[in-house]
Order: sequence, then C-alpha cells, then structure tokens
Amino acid sequence: MTSLADLADVGRDARRGGYSRHGFDRVELELREWFTAEATARGLDVRADRNGNLWAWWGRPGPGAVVTGSHLDSVPGGGAFDGPLGVVSALQAVDLLRSRGFRPARPLAVAVFVEEEGGRFGVACLGTRLMTGAITPERAAALVDADGVGFGDAARAAGFDPSAMGRDDAALTSIGAFVELHVEQGRGLTAPVGVASSILAHGRWRFTFTGEGNHAGATLVEDRRDPVLPASATVLAARAAARGGARATVGRIVPNPGGTNVIASSVDLWLDARASDDATTRAVVAEVVEAAERAAADEGCEVRVTEESYGDTVHFDAGLRDELSAVLGGVPALPTGAGHDAGVLAGHVPTAMLFVRNPTGVSHAPEEFAEDADCAAGVVALAAALEHLAG
Amino acid sequence: MTSLADLADVGRDARRGGYSRHGFDRVELELREWFTAEATARGLDVRADRNGNLWAWWGRPGPGAVVTGSHLDSVPGGGAFDGPLGVVSALQAVDLLRSRGFRPARPLAVAVFVEEEGGRFGVACLGTRLMTGAITPERAAALVDADGVGFGDAARAAGFDPSAMGRDDAALTSIGAFVELHVEQGRGLTAPVGVASSILAHGRWRFTFTGEGNHAGATLVEDRRDPVLPASATVLAARAAARGGARATVGRIVPNPGGTNVIASSVDLWLDARASDDATTRAVVAEVVEAAERAAADEGCEVRVTEESYGDTVHFDAGLRDELSAVLGGVPALPTGAGHDAGVLAGHVPTAMLFVRNPTGVSHAPEEFAEDADCAAGVVALAAALEHLAG
Repeated sequence: MTSLADLADVGRDARRGGYSRHGFDRVELELREWFTAEATARGLDVRADRNGNLWAWWGRPGPGAVVTGSHLDSVPGGGAFDGPLGVVSALQAVDLLRSRGFRPARPLAVAVFVEEEGGRFGVACLGTRLMTGAITPERAAALVDADGVGFGDAARAAGFDPSAMGRDDAALTSIGAFVELHVEQGRGLTAPVGVASSILAHGRWRFTFTGEGNHAGATLVEDRRDPVLPASATVLAARAAARGGARATVGRIVPNPGGTNVIASSVDLWLDARASDDATTRAVVAEVVEAAERAAADEGCEVRVTEESYGDTVHFDAGLRDELSAVLGGVPALPTGAGHDAGVLAGHVPTAMLFVRNPTGVSHAPEEFAEDADCAAGVVALAAALEHLAG
Repeated sequence: MTSLADLADVGRDARRGGYSRHGFDRVELELREWFTAEATARGLDVRADRNGNLWAWWGRPGPGAVVTGSHLDSVPGGGAFDGPLGVVSALQAVDLLRSRGFRPARPLAVAVFVEEEGGRFGVACLGTRLMTGAITPERAAALVDADGVGFGDAARAAGFDPSAMGRDDAALTSIGAFVELHVEQGRGLTAPVGVASSILAHGRWRFTFTGEGNHAGATLVEDRRDPVLPASATVLAARAAARGGARATVGRIVPNPGGTNVIASSVDLWLDARASDDATTRAVVAEVVEAAERAAADEGCEVRVTEESYGDTVHFDAGLRDELSAVLGGVPALPTGAGHDAGVLAGHVPTAMLFVRNPTGVSHAPEEFAEDADCAAGVVALAAALEHLAG
C-alpha cells in the first residue's frame, strides 16, 4: 500500500537533518515521477498544468470537480509530513473509496502544487499564486535561488514554458471545491482530526543591511560600520514586536562575505511576520523596520527592506467548514498560523482544510511527527469528505 | 615583470566580490603552480615541505638562511594584497638584488605558507602552526571545511601525506631570520613603509546555540526556544565587551536549517576577539560567554563554546626590528591587530615584518588597496633588508 514510508529515503539532508525538497530540484522531480506512477497505476489521468502543478483525474476533468492534494516540497531540513501527508492521504482516500465501490458523481482530482514552501525561490505557494494570478509570471520567472538559478530556467529544465505561465481560469473554474489535508503545525488540535477556520495574515520581508567590510583585527571599534550589529538588534526587535498572538521570526541570516576574521560588508536577513489581521501584521513589521533603521543609523549602516510576499488573513468558507465538521462527526475547527495552497485558493473557490493532530507541535523540523493512527483517521476523514462532496 | 596584476583574474568571487582563495582548493593550487613556475624561471629551487608549505631556495638550503614570503590564500571575498603582496614583493626583491649583482653570503629563500587565513578549515596560519607544532597533525587532519571535506583529505589530494605532517625542526633550524612583507591593515602607517612591533593576542571561539526547530507561523512565541535570539544578543554583547582597544567581531553566523519560515534548531556563530595581552583577551571572551549563557538560558536554549585557535601577544625581536628600521632609514615601528605566519614563527626564530602603507585602512575586503609607489617602496625596503641580513 502506498504510504509516507515510500518517500522516506528521498531528499534526506545529511547536513541539516530531515528533508530538503524544493520546487523543480532533482528531489522534487523524483517525487513528481513517483506521484505520476502511483496515480497512473490507479488509472488516474495525470496532467501537468502550465504552471507546473500536477493533477491526477478520476473521471473527466471539468467544472464542479472535487479536488484534494497538497505539495511534495519541504523547507530546508524539514519534516516528513508537511506536504507529502496530504498527497499520500489523497491517494489512500481514493483507494478506500474504491474499495467501498464508491463512484463519484462529480469529477475528482488529486493535485500536487509546486514550491509551496518557497524554500528555493523565496515565495511560498508559487504554484497556486501563479494559477490564481497572485504573482505575475514575469515576477516568478525572475526569482532566483541561492545558487543564482532562476525560477524560469528551473521550470524550463523541468519541461515547462515560463512564458505560458500565469493565471489559469480554466484550472480554477474546473474546481467546485478544494479540500487539503495537512498535518497540524501547532499544538492546537487535541482530537485526531479537525477542520481549519482561518489562516493568519502573513508575509516575508528581506532586510539588507550594508556597512563597510574590513579586517576583524586591524579595525578599531570606533572606525567600524558593521552591519551584523543592526541585523542582530533587528532580531531582538522582532521578538519584542510579536505581542498578543502575533509572530515574528528570523530564521535566515546571511552575512557577506561570512568570514570569521572579517567584518561583514552586508547582511541579508529575512523576517517572517504573522498576525490575526492585516493591520496588526503591518504594525508588527513597521515596528521592526523602525528598529532596524534606528540600529542601522547608530552603526553608520544602511538598511533596505523589501516585501517578498504577503497574504492577508484567510477565512475558510464557513458553510463548507461546518458541513465537513458535521460529516466527520463534529470535529473541532481551529485557526492556524501556517500558510497553505488552500489559503491561496480560498479567495477563488470554496476551500476547506482537514488537519491531522500533531502531538508535539513541532513542524518545519526533522522531529515533525504524527501518529499512524491519527494519519489513518485523516485518510478516513478525507475519504468521507470527498464522498460527501463528490457523491 | 612579475606583479600582482598577474594574479588579478585568479580566484575572483562573483558572489561576494574580491577573491576567495583557500588552502588546497583549486584556486590556491593554481597560485602555487604559478609561484613554482615563477621561482623556477629565476633558477630558484622550489621544494614543498611535509606540511604543504613551499620554499624557493636561492643557494643551498641550510641553517642560518634568510627567509621571506607570505601566503597566497585569502579570506572569503578578500582583497588582492593580503598575502600575495608579500610573495610577489619577495620575487621582485630577488630580481632587484640580482640586477645589482648581489650574491648572498647566506642562503636565501622565498616561502609560501598554506591556509594562513583559516578561511577554509577554520584555523589561521595552519602551515606555520603545523611546522612549529602549535597544532597537532591529528587535530589539523580532522578539521573540516563547510562542504565536509577534511584537511587531511584535501592535503592528500594535493599530494601531501597527512600522517607525515607535524613539527618540522629541520625547516625551523634552517631559518636564521624570517622577514614577512605585508600590506598594513589599519590606518596606523603614514609613511610608505614601516616595521612591526607587536601583534595583539587573538583567537577564535565557536558558539553553538541549540534550541528547538519549529514552524515560524504555527508556533506561539511563548512556546519558542529560538537560538537566533541568544545568538543575536551575543553579537551585541561582543561589541559591548570590546573596550579600550580590544576588538570583538562576529562576521560569520550560520542558523540551521536557515529557512525563512522556520525557527532555527541551532545557530553557529564565530567570535574573533583580540586585545593587547592575554588577560584582557580572556576577559573579553569571558564577558561574551557569560552574556551568551545568560541569553541562552532566558530563551530555554543551550550554548557550547569551543576555542578553535588562540595566540598570545607577539612581540617581534626588538633587536632585529630596530636594525631593520635603521637600515631602512629610520622607518616607524607599529603594532598590528592582524595575525600573521610571522607571528607564529616569532616564537621560534628571529622574525620581523615590513608593512606597506594602507591609505584607507580597509583589509579583508575587495576594496583593500595600496598605492603602486608604496608597493615599489616595499620591494626596495625588502631587498635592502635581505641584503643586510644575507650579505
């Protein structure tokens, strides 16, 4: 039987631990091959859309389809569940429905969206953002990874034409309802399965501090313009700004040139900020930017801030949420701080999410975990949801 | 004529700017080939010692030799002068002495020491530390670069046997006097050329902060153990501890896994600390370690501190210093905050350094610079020093 264990050896990151699987990299392409083979073996008709997302159809593609799925990429050094659990559970749900002799009255599809984490090109949910027009194909093609490879070139190497990318109304109108199953990422779910109510407003901001590179031994302290100082002050300011349920995180800092005996000439730092609504998120970011500018000025440095991505609060379709909760026996509804392709699609089609319990609350880390029994309950719940919607 | 311009295209770092040339990497091996060819073309007899250092002999190797030279490696994204200027000037000084018909009464050699910056394997002056026994060959062989390649393997690939490395008394006793020419790295020299009086006590300490990797959106602030926080506090504490001429620098910070939407599970950070004497340097480091431990505890994190290298204050041979200053017409003597192979050798053989003026004080950066006229004055001074010592 298809299971997450089938993917256990694909894309392990020996240095960071866990998995590093990124949009259109060798590993993600291998996982896409695996998905295509699994879906084809089930008689599903696998097609790629022009934005690089995969669709495995049970029945003739068309309006009113019930679509489930998730993503196969990870953060750098991520866990085994975030993304693949939703894809594997979808295939298992198809098996379960068939074993019961279920015949969908509406077309059903399992989708795999590209570069959901933004771990390679910096913008999360790239596949669904392209499909919905939330990012222009020109901007997407210009994104570059840490090795300087552009998204456009990576897409081309994977067999896609970057100039054909962009808003895909045909794909969107084919979806009657979208349901994404995902491992929960906090400690908010005490039942095995729940449904999502909302996603925090969230975005990413790049802070580039510039100072003067110099020798760490020969340069007097009073002569320094060291950008590591204001970058560090900004990390502390971000924590201070994350009040009342807001979150502000710096997980990526890159001093340039990055030598031990070298005063850096510049530092890039990424702020991930999230809060319950747009105004609060903007206020958190404004507070951090102000602190960064003050700290930079104190050190004779400069700072430039760029918004790399942003998404306002998502409120999932309340009717669909309550309907699925009831079908599943009254499972709880809960908000999440994590972004998802479902959050991008929610602005365009009726969308719901099912969460599988996370016993430790750890995610985006090798220790990310869900119990087998809870994952099985997730498959049963997803099958019930699909049966209800497509039956 | 041999000049620094010959090396202008070797080892450029397109990402960081400047040059990245590291011990036994492709670029440093190319520069060693260049040096061997240049020295051989002059009829010098080039030999590698068992620690990977090169020696080009004018005359028969033997006790009482006058040795000059420097290194060809750089910091990541370093300048054109730090290291290569001393090697190129040595070859030019040989040419100048020969053009005058000088015949050395004592053997003369130009040396190139391996991995002076520690930019690849983390320990500075690796070639001279091995030669003097300041590091054991076992510890050196176990050093690994950022890609996980060991120094032992890199040395083997370059044709050296790591098991034959270690203290080299034959090499040390061959040196009657060592003179290294180097670009000055602060703004301490207003004359074209000067001599060194001392080097600050200095070392490198690695701080590893460990916390709990998690999701940047789904993890409540109060549930976090984010090692980026104490790492940032440590950067600020290092600056605060650098008082009264002491220096404390963090130029390299590596959060793991380093994802934008990921709370890091660990952070490695390197402290470069220097002061006029051992006690002051130790006090600076102790103050930073204490602040790091306090900040780590406040965040529920842990910190482990490792001393990666350390060298006490170097006072260059006063007699040799005054003698050379007089030979050069009374040039000034000045201390430096930068470490050098000459500093390692000074504990074993009479050692001196000549500095060439640095008009901006920038070093370890692409903007590092010295005027042609000052470099030429450096060659004339080095030739005069060699003539005086070997005549």
